[in-house]
Amino acid sequence: MSFSDYQYEIYLNGLAGQQPPYSTSFAELERVARERLEPGPYWYVAGSAGIGATQRANREAFDRRRIVPRMLRDVSVRDLGVELFGRRYPAPLLLAPIGVQSIVHPDGEMATARAAASLGVPMVLSTAASHTIEEVAEAGGPRWFQLYWPHDDEVTLSLLQRAAGSGYDTLVVTLDTWTLAWRPRDLDLAYLPFLRGTGLAIPFSDPVFRSRLERPVEEDLNGAIIQWAPMFNGRSHTWERLSLLRDNWDGPIVLKGVQHPDDALRAADAGMDGVVVSNHGGRQVDGATASLDALPAIAAAVGDRLTVLFDSGVRTGSDVVKALALGARAVLLGRPYVWGLAVGGEDGVRHVLRSLLAELDLTLGLAGHDGPAGLDPSALEAS
Amino acid sequence: MSFSDYQYEIYLNGLAGQQPPYSTSFAELERVARERLEPGPYWYVAGSAGIGATQRANREAFDRRRIVPRMLRDVSVRDLGVELFGRRYPAPLLLAPIGVQSIVHPDGEMATARAAASLGVPMVLSTAASHTIEEVAEAGGPRWFQLYWPHDDEVTLSLLQRAAGSGYDTLVVTLDTWTLAWRPRDLDLAYLPFLRGTGLAIPFSDPVFRSRLERPVEEDLNGAIIQWAPMFNGRSHTWERLSLLRDNWDGPIVLKGVQHPDDALRAADAGMDGVVVSNHGGRQVDGATASLDALPAIAAAVGDRLTVLFDSGVRTGSDVVKALALGARAVLLGRPYVWGLAVGGEDGVRHVLRSLLAELDLTLGLAGHDGPAGLDPSALEAS
Amino acid sequence: MSFSDYQYEIYLNGLAGQQPPYSTSFAELERVARERLEPGPYWYVAGSAGIGATQRANREAFDRRRIVPRMLRDVSVRDLGVELFGRRYPAPLLLAPIGVQSIVHPDGEMATARAAASLGVPMVLSTAASHTIEEVAEAGGPRWFQLYWPHDDEVTLSLLQRAAGSGYDTLVVTLDTWTLAWRPRDLDLAYLPFLRGTGLAIPFSDPVFRSRLERPVEEDLNGAIIQWAPMFNGRSHTWERLSLLRDNWDGPIVLKGVQHPDDALRAADAGMDGVVVSNHGGRQVDGATASLDALPAIAAAVGDRLTVLFDSGVRTGSDVVKALALGARAVLLGRPYVWGLAVGGEDGVRHVLRSLLAELDLTLGLAGHDGPAGLDPSALEAS
Amino acid sequence: MSFSDYQYEIYLNGLAGQQPPYSTSFAELERVARERLEPGPYWYVAGSAGIGATQRANREAFDRRRIVPRMLRDVSVRDLGVELFGRRYPAPLLLAPIGVQSIVHPDGEMATARAAASLGVPMVLSTAASHTIEEVAEAGGPRWFQLYWPHDDEVTLSLLQRAAGSGYDTLVVTLDTWTLAWRPRDLDLAYLPFLRGTGLAIPFSDPVFRSRLERPVEEDLNGAIIQWAPMFNGRSHTWERLSLLRDNWDGPIVLKGVQHPDDALRAADAGMDGVVVSNHGGRQVDGATASLDALPAIAAAVGDRLTVLFDSGVRTGSDVVKALALGARAVLLGRPYVWGLAVGGEDGVRHVLRSLLAELDLTLGLAGHDGPAGLDPSALEAS
Repeated sequence: MSFSDYQYEIYLNGLAGQQPPYSTSFAELERVARERLEPGPYWYVAGSAGIGATQRANREAFDRRRIVPRMLRDVSVRDLGVELFGRRYPAPLLLAPIGVQSIVHPDGEMATARAAASLGVPMVLSTAASHTIEEVAEAGGPRWFQLYWPHDDEVTLSLLQRAAGSGYDTLVVTLDTWTLAWRPRDLDLAYLPFLRGTGLAIPFSDPVFRSRLERPVEEDLNGAIIQWAPMFNGRSHTWERLSLLRDNWDGPIVLKGVQHPDDALRAADAGMDGVVVSNHGGRQVDGATASLDALPAIAAAVGDRLTVLFDSGVRTGSDVVKALALGARAVLLGRPYVWGLAVGGEDGVRHVLRSLLAELDLTLGLAGHDGPAGLDPSALEAS
Repeated sequence: MSFSDYQYEIYLNGLAGQQPPYSTSFAELERVARERLEPGPYWYVAGSAGIGATQRANREAFDRRRIVPRMLRDVSVRDLGVELFGRRYPAPLLLAPIGVQSIVHPDGEMATARAAASLGVPMVLSTAASHTIEEVAEAGGPRWFQLYWPHDDEVTLSLLQRAAGSGYDTLVVTLDTWTLAWRPRDLDLAYLPFLRGTGLAIPFSDPVFRSRLERPVEEDLNGAIIQWAPMFNGRSHTWERLSLLRDNWDGPIVLKGVQHPDDALRAADAGMDGVVVSNHGGRQVDGATASLDALPAIAAAVGDRLTVLFDSGVRTGSDVVKALALGARAVLLGRPYVWGLAVGGEDGVRHVLRSLLAELDLTLGLAGHDGPAGLDPSALEAS
Repeated sequence: MSFSDYQYEIYLNGLAGQQPPYSTSFAELERVARERLEPGPYWYVAGSAGIGATQRANREAFDRRRIVPRMLRDVSVRDLGVELFGRRYPAPLLLAPIGVQSIVHPDGEMATARAAASLGVPMVLSTAASHTIEEVAEAGGPRWFQLYWPHDDEVTLSLLQRAAGSGYDTLVVTLDTWTLAWRPRDLDLAYLPFLRGTGLAIPFSDPVFRSRLERPVEEDLNGAIIQWAPMFNGRSHTWERLSLLRDNWDGPIVLKGVQHPDDALRAADAGMDGVVVSNHGGRQVDGATASLDALPAIAAAVGDRLTVLFDSGVRTGSDVVKALALGARAVLLGRPYVWGLAVGGEDGVRHVLRSLLAELDLTLGLAGHDGPAGLDPSALEAS
Repeated sequence: MSFSDYQYEIYLNGLAGQQPPYSTSFAELERVARERLEPGPYWYVAGSAGIGATQRANREAFDRRRIVPRMLRDVSVRDLGVELFGRRYPAPLLLAPIGVQSIVHPDGEMATARAAASLGVPMVLSTAASHTIEEVAEAGGPRWFQLYWPHDDEVTLSLLQRAAGSGYDTLVVTLDTWTLAWRPRDLDLAYLPFLRGTGLAIPFSDPVFRSRLERPVEEDLNGAIIQWAPMFNGRSHTWERLSLLRDNWDGPIVLKGVQHPDDALRAADAGMDGVVVSNHGGRQVDGATASLDALPAIAAAVGDRLTVLFDSGVRTGSDVVKALALGARAVLLGRPYVWGLAVGGEDGVRHVLRSLLAELDLTLGLAGHDGPAGLDPSALEAS
């Protein structure tokens, strides 16, 4: 079975008079999700920092780059698999860490995790999930853990221990969101799920965090939120403090949100294993450089010292091809799978993943490549 | 008679109170076609791979390039004729191979062939046509045969033999569609005409293909489709295998879908006679380079070794001028003539061709050229 | 009195509760004209060749260039006057030759001529006018004559003689319209005013032209049109034949439609006095270079050998400043004054001219210049 | 307390079911203001010179530049304060001088001044204010005085004396508006507030100006306006005359409207202390260079000789970051606070300022900077 079989499946269902339950256009999927969701949840996901300049820049950067397909190559059989940190994955694709998924669907991260597991695609579980580290682990499948790094080292170590204990093998440390950005859509709706306790399943289930509280979460939600807020929001960490993580996590560590080659080099110096070139989908620094524009220089700077992953703006199979050609080893998909979740729960997420993987498989082949390994800048038009 | 006479004809009819039955704006023609067609057929023609980035890029590439008209030249008499592979054609224009034309008009390729024949413009008959090689040949007129290259050499040879026997003198081998791309519009509608048997007239009428079937097509359509699908879709050919075609086709062979100079050079090495620089109108690799952007380097690379044709995005007479100036010897027109077919059958196709040729004739003259031969990059603004 | 007094006049009328009868936004003026006119006349003026690419390019070229205003200069008193061919004009502005003006207002060119005369702005009378050379001369004011150059030398000489005799002192020879371009809007409406006899006042009143007819125009309109069409449309002239004009016109001759430096140089060699860098407002070669983009190289090439005028896309006072800074000595205004004519006859044209001149006066001063003479490329942002 | 606390405040109000009374999107704020205002006042503020090319260019110039955020820096504690001319201000932000504010809200400049004072942000009071120098001073808070420089030296000196006497410590001399530009929206509505006496509180309260009148303002408004108009509009000053201001103002003098490095150098030579790189928000020279595009060369040219401020197009916190990175020491905010005033008076202005400062604080921190001092071109993507 190959990823592109999903194409046949859809057309064959068409023979039986059946159209796909969800659109294969992610823009259309978002439209439907928007109709079904309240403005708060919709905009929490769809929105961006400021006036959305970086969110648009992310897409324009993809649009500016162009693939040059090659013909008559032996690419009938393709293997999309990649090795990341010594482990083989079926495709150069991960699910980006997105929190509070229960605001768009009651099953939240559980549905996402099950969809990802059914395809063998690794999910990066957010610290801001609606379900606990342990619950999500039950879905099986490859799993990474994303850390919003608390300003309480014992809580940090407890989270790492729980993640490792539940089989999350890679740690993704988000650097770009130590404080929440200015997001006019959320502000106008005064909608911040965390202040209602949503997205706090992980700290609230944490024994060390709970030991910080005067009264149990269940009895005093506001007190717990008041404890949580300054621990997770408003203060930055520094390079020196990465040793805490390095010393307490055996698996690979990836820094997410890197946009400058010097920061990537510093990550290597600090013993990190990888970076995610990302601007958080335009949700943090409005006016920031497009993530794809930042990628080539970072990839060139770090060479083999780090595994470079990419995130921010991926919407199509050709986007994946472009990011890989510019130096990413794999990409993280964000908002589109949340629209899948919103319209179809686990099924909807699977549909989005299968669609993207099918498109990637076909695009890769039609461009003359039998897998990610063959991609380098020569796959694109010289810019 | 010159091609631009169509202009007078229209204005003179206006004197008699008669407006042209079809718009001379192809965008308007498409709008009318869209109103008349079901979404399936409309989008099958209008749609593109992925999010349409390459379809848009094709147009932007034309828009970026600009003609510099020259004055007071002796261009009152113009000859648009070109020689391609030793044969003279009235204009540097061919009808691109487009399959399943019966989905937009009951007369399908027959109407197109008759319109083309009436003007002496060569039609490139698609392997995926709704009518057989032999039927379409009856329309007379210059004809080329486009090959979707099956993975059954005996079927391949049978198709070549039939085409040659019916007077198709040039073989166009499409390289970029050995597997169908991810096309969200078609997928959302689950509309693939082939699975209903449309567009299979040529294989279904082929004795070798029929010999592969357990039961006749007429008795077991699904069985025939199941035989057809893997033979024509899902596997790539390779450069080495071009010898099969070269050894079994006496006339010129043109490879369609070339986008890289190295592939064009390899085509020359393989004894091919020409290439069509094309991205299949944005229908295959979304995010691929604009076809016009790929043209100059390919033309420069092959020099006189190959005849370079062009396809993808041609909508106006000035587009033709630009493509010729950048190195194409002739261009293939695609979707616009299908809109003509949809709204007016044979008459509609002829209207589209006459409109484009009139505009080309006038534009060429007004830019200071008396025919295609005078065009080179100096006809355009330096970029 | 200075041109910018029109600003005070409008605001002072506002005090008395009176808004200007016509908009000072030419886009708005066009909108109103469109409401009032039949589609035929509206589109004949508003439309362009092909898909309008060059019409858009003309505007984009202005938009790309930017003025750098200079401060604290002594520019309270400004003189917009320019000398062209030894004659002083009040501003670097002429009315572009536009034919068949009676299709938008019954007074046609008479209204335009009177408005121009009232401001001392030269009008370039079109060979395709709705009124005769002699009638329009009665409006007084500086006047130039535009020649659509017939393929009948005796008619040509008769037209020159009439123009000179009626006080038209400069001859503008349009090179870019020896045959009418492909204009989809007009074609779809099958609207060509000439075929109904409109815009033929000048040839029809010409004794030599009349001598070519078997029966008088008044008795056989169609016969006259049939005589007229091939004389004025469909055949190009050549450089060599310019001597006919040079030998038979004592005043300055300006070639209109030049877009390439080599053509401008050849004009100088042929004894011409000036060129109008123009693409006929995007009405002839669709896909042609923006007129403003062609200007700097032409101005640089000809230096002092020719007077360079500019036309195509001028809509604002800042456009005039930009064209002058890039080498034009004066500009021709086109469509906007026709919208003025459509909505207000002579008054409407005067409003448009006064508006543009007021804006030019203010813009020039605010940019730090006391007249056209101070403008060179340093007035603009380096590109 | 830090500026970003406004973010928490809004979200916490959300917990109590309360959305912010005004949108945090300034585009939305403008939409609401437009609904509430008559066209005259709305367009007087929103409109621009000519066709708005420069107003759009201002925004595009911001959009083209991109911040490169840096990670893991110690930026938890940020100080947005800047020193300008020896005085410390809480943020690199001032309120641009905008006149006739009473046309959008009855409290006019008083509301603005109070809002600014409550935050310690300096307001630059316009000569064209609806309230007097002395009245506005009562709001307290840091205040600068903007001079529309009259052509009557005694009036000028009286204005300077009054401003100094009322505690305005910096003089901002607007150079770019010695005559009003061509503004089609205002012209079409024939709306100029000054001709109705609005925005003339400062001259009308001036003893020297009053001494010029035959009859008191209160008895003969038109007579006063007629006296005012030529004194303030229609004539330019020159570099030489700056000595009058320099000799009669003890505090710093800043020239506003500078767009060329040579003009900035000349300002330094004339003993000025600073410049505001500005195109008056696109209200004066349509087609002028984007203010942000003019900034880097001016900053480079003057080095430490002048304090460079920036104005025109600032809408977001990231805009402020970009302007500072390109050489501005502080920026002036214009239209957005007027929309705040229109929809909420003093409260509305405060909301706009707090929103912008919160966004600036967050953006600065998330980009890796702990204050304005750290910003230089390396904070942006190399262009």
